[in-house]
Amino acid sequence: MLLCDIGNTSVHFLDNTNGEYKESVVNFNPKNFKQKIYYISVNYTLSKQLEDLDNWINLELFIDKSKYYDTMGVDRIFIVEATNNSVIVDAGSAVTIDVVRDGIYEGGFIYPGKNAMKKCYTGISSALEYSFNFELNQGHLAKNSQDAISYGYLKLLASEVSSYGLPIIVTGGDAREFVKLFENATLNNRLLFEGMQKIIAQL
Amino acid sequence: MLLCDIGNTSVHFLDNTNGEYKESVVNFNPKNFKQKIYYISVNYTLSKQLEDLDNWINLELFIDKSKYYDTMGVDRIFIVEATNNSVIVDAGSAVTIDVVRDGIYEGGFIYPGKNAMKKCYTGISSALEYSFNFELNQGHLAKNSQDAISYGYLKLLASEVSSYGLPIIVTGGDAREFVKLFENATLNNRLLFEGMQKIIAQL
Repeated sequence: MLLCDIGNTSVHFLDNTNGEYKESVVNFNPKNFKQKIYYISVNYTLSKQLEDLDNWINLELFIDKSKYYDTMGVDRIFIVEATNNSVIVDAGSAVTIDVVRDGIYEGGFIYPGKNAMKKCYTGISSALEYSFNFELNQGHLAKNSQDAISYGYLKLLASEVSSYGLPIIVTGGDAREFVKLFENATLNNRLLFEGMQKIIAQL
Repeated sequence: MLLCDIGNTSVHFLDNTNGEYKESVVNFNPKNFKQKIYYISVNYTLSKQLEDLDNWINLELFIDKSKYYDTMGVDRIFIVEATNNSVIVDAGSAVTIDVVRDGIYEGGFIYPGKNAMKKCYTGISSALEYSFNFELNQGHLAKNSQDAISYGYLKLLASEVSSYGLPIIVTGGDAREFVKLFENATLNNRLLFEGMQKIIAQL
């Protein structure tokens, strides 16, 4: 079975034989694929092309959207679909946080990703041009500039995420750094594919 | 008595007769003042000029800097000097949070100001181009995009600031909005001048 997550810059595949791989949107031609492929897409142009290809199955059509909100990204929805009881931290260009308790989606929030936030602090003052310290001592308020911005950005997020009393799953491109913020958290970079597999199992 | 807080774009005065007023750094000539003036300055060029004028008293010289950290702004230090037991939220281009407990400075952190943070979210995606809702229901996770960024930016700050169990004082240019985040907080836009008065009383 071939699963495909189509973004605006890259296309991410999971197949039973070759595992995970990515290719650039530029090199991607869906007509080259003859087998059945289950996909989700946030890429408007490619979504239009795929509508006419019978072997490409858009899993978004099988989601009960009433559980979510109108402008919520389909990638975020599938990550949520993968779990029944957890808080999910998806750390990419934005950090999205979603809470699922006893199978019910409670809502979430959106926080800036680390590159956007670094640029944000640096834009306020060149005196705040530091990298974030993901191994910050969260038990102490800051007494230097690097810790002052790291505490502001990361400790506040860690406290909020831990406050729900649910298992924490970290996913996304920056998952390896963000997982360090929590005492007990699971890193899972296949969460979105797991959500797709769960929906396929119900078809 | 004339007090003066010198920034990079404006000069802020407090005098016993006329109250508070501001003027632009461009129009400011310290040699026009003949009376004794107590000041603090983050403006390097003006600080240099003031060193040669006997009637301008730099209050920064009377602070015990060992309580603070090297790169901490003098304006932030004087806000802290004004209080003995509180968490201070100074909401401007950055939001600085400082904690003073039983007269001891415990440290603080730096969070982006609302304009910088709005730009930050918008830079990630035009789909996140919203104003922040300072009257957000903090008790519920978000289910729309405006609440999702407002929760990320403001609820996380409100939770952290409230967690210290100390009286909350809000100051700075955006104080009127940020004070709405807390159930019990005092708005005080003269806190920095109060810090200056406290140091003058000890001279």
